[in-house]
Amino acid sequence: MISIEVVLSPALLHLANVKNKNVVVIDILRATSTICTAIHEGALAVRPVNTIDEALIFKNQDYLIAAERDGYKIEGFDMGNSPFECMNGFVKERKLALTTTNGTKCITAASVAGASNVLAGSFLNISATADWLINDQKDIVLLCAGWKDKVNLEDSLYAGALATLLKERTTLTSDCDTTLITMDLYSISKNDMAEYLAKSSHYQRLSHLHHQEDMVYCLKMNLFGTVTGLKNLEMVKIN
Amino acid sequence: MISIEVVLSPALLHLANVKNKNVVVIDILRATSTICTAIHEGALAVRPVNTIDEALIFKNQDYLIAAERDGYKIEGFDMGNSPFECMNGFVKERKLALTTTNGTKCITAASVAGASNVLAGSFLNISATADWLINDQKDIVLLCAGWKDKVNLEDSLYAGALATLLKERTTLTSDCDTTLITMDLYSISKNDMAEYLAKSSHYQRLSHLHHQEDMVYCLKMNLFGTVTGLKNLEMVKIN
Repeated sequence: MISIEVVLSPALLHLANVKNKNVVVIDILRATSTICTAIHEGALAVRPVNTIDEALIFKNQDYLIAAERDGYKIEGFDMGNSPFECMNGFVKERKLALTTTNGTKCITAASVAGASNVLAGSFLNISATADWLINDQKDIVLLCAGWKDKVNLEDSLYAGALATLLKERTTLTSDCDTTLITMDLYSISKNDMAEYLAKSSHYQRLSHLHHQEDMVYCLKMNLFGTVTGLKNLEMVKIN
Repeated sequence: MISIEVVLSPALLHLANVKNKNVVVIDILRATSTICTAIHEGALAVRPVNTIDEALIFKNQDYLIAAERDGYKIEGFDMGNSPFECMNGFVKERKLALTTTNGTKCITAASVAGASNVLAGSFLNISATADWLINDQKDIVLLCAGWKDKVNLEDSLYAGALATLLKERTTLTSDCDTTLITMDLYSISKNDMAEYLAKSSHYQRLSHLHHQEDMVYCLKMNLFGTVTGLKNLEMVKIN
């Protein structure tokens, strides 16, 4: 029996006990989708860093440096926060240092709070991630990155989708209402998530920045089976 | 055009700007349902206080004192936190000082944060509350009290129900996903909220404490048209 809890915002993380649990950090648009894509495309590691300055330090250590704030790529960096920048061999056998508005901070926060493992959540590998979690048998916390601590739709939907998948495959226990809430949201949107998400705040924010292609990609299910998690401060392939 | 924002937990209140807005505090099971019932039953005022000790001070000032922690009435108090304790003339023309686990603290927090008005949300007077808000024309924040800062189902559902009602009656604008999330939750549960809520954590908590009757009552829609809001630190009839 695995217990599961959904945390809808990093500002609520202190209410959850993540010690010795597996935490899945969820920043669907786009940090954790991009991290999973980078690792699947052969990057050796993605190091989440909290600040632009911290990322710049890694430039001299043979890392590709990637940074995004408020949806924009930062001037002078090798990459922004788009999964497409990780394709066509650009990240193959390279290490990346990545800082984003929401997602990368959550990876650090979950790790500092004592999580046993910190995984990157994405629709792109949701089935493989569910299998990994079931195989590991530890209790699970799904941590939505949200937008600047506000609850958002796409991360909540992924939490619901993953909880639904886990429930189909193993015996889950949950005493938090957010698991129910996100599973119900997923159930009403699963037949056309793109249409459902079109009304979300971040979807509209990214649409204005011409990231439409990224959003279509980040909602694709099970494009690959690579599972990504934190080892020695870096996100790497863990299966 | 009235803007609306739903805050799913008091721990996220700092992210919302409530200054000069109308804030509806929502603690359906049971604080704000009980406050609305007390005022409808002829209580002159309900003073929300934050601590047991603070409530005791009011005993010597001719207030009825009411206290609940973790679902239990506190020894030595006139009342707990059940709407039925407010009936049969017990509170008529009396003032109450009330402290509860979640809801009363939110009333104080919203007031301190600079809200223009702080209303008590309940299904019992939802239509009258919607009309009052539309008539007042200020922007609106719906603040869910949750359970010890955790997001809960019943407060989220009421937020969705009130937002839905407001949208049917006026032009609303919202750039937060939580308005969408709660409206969608309400839409899938509205035909049988009691059954839907039976799976929620607090419903189960209160069931164990034999508060079944309270829960059935607190989900009834539009039993009365009295609207309750804060004036001079006390919740009173405002329409």
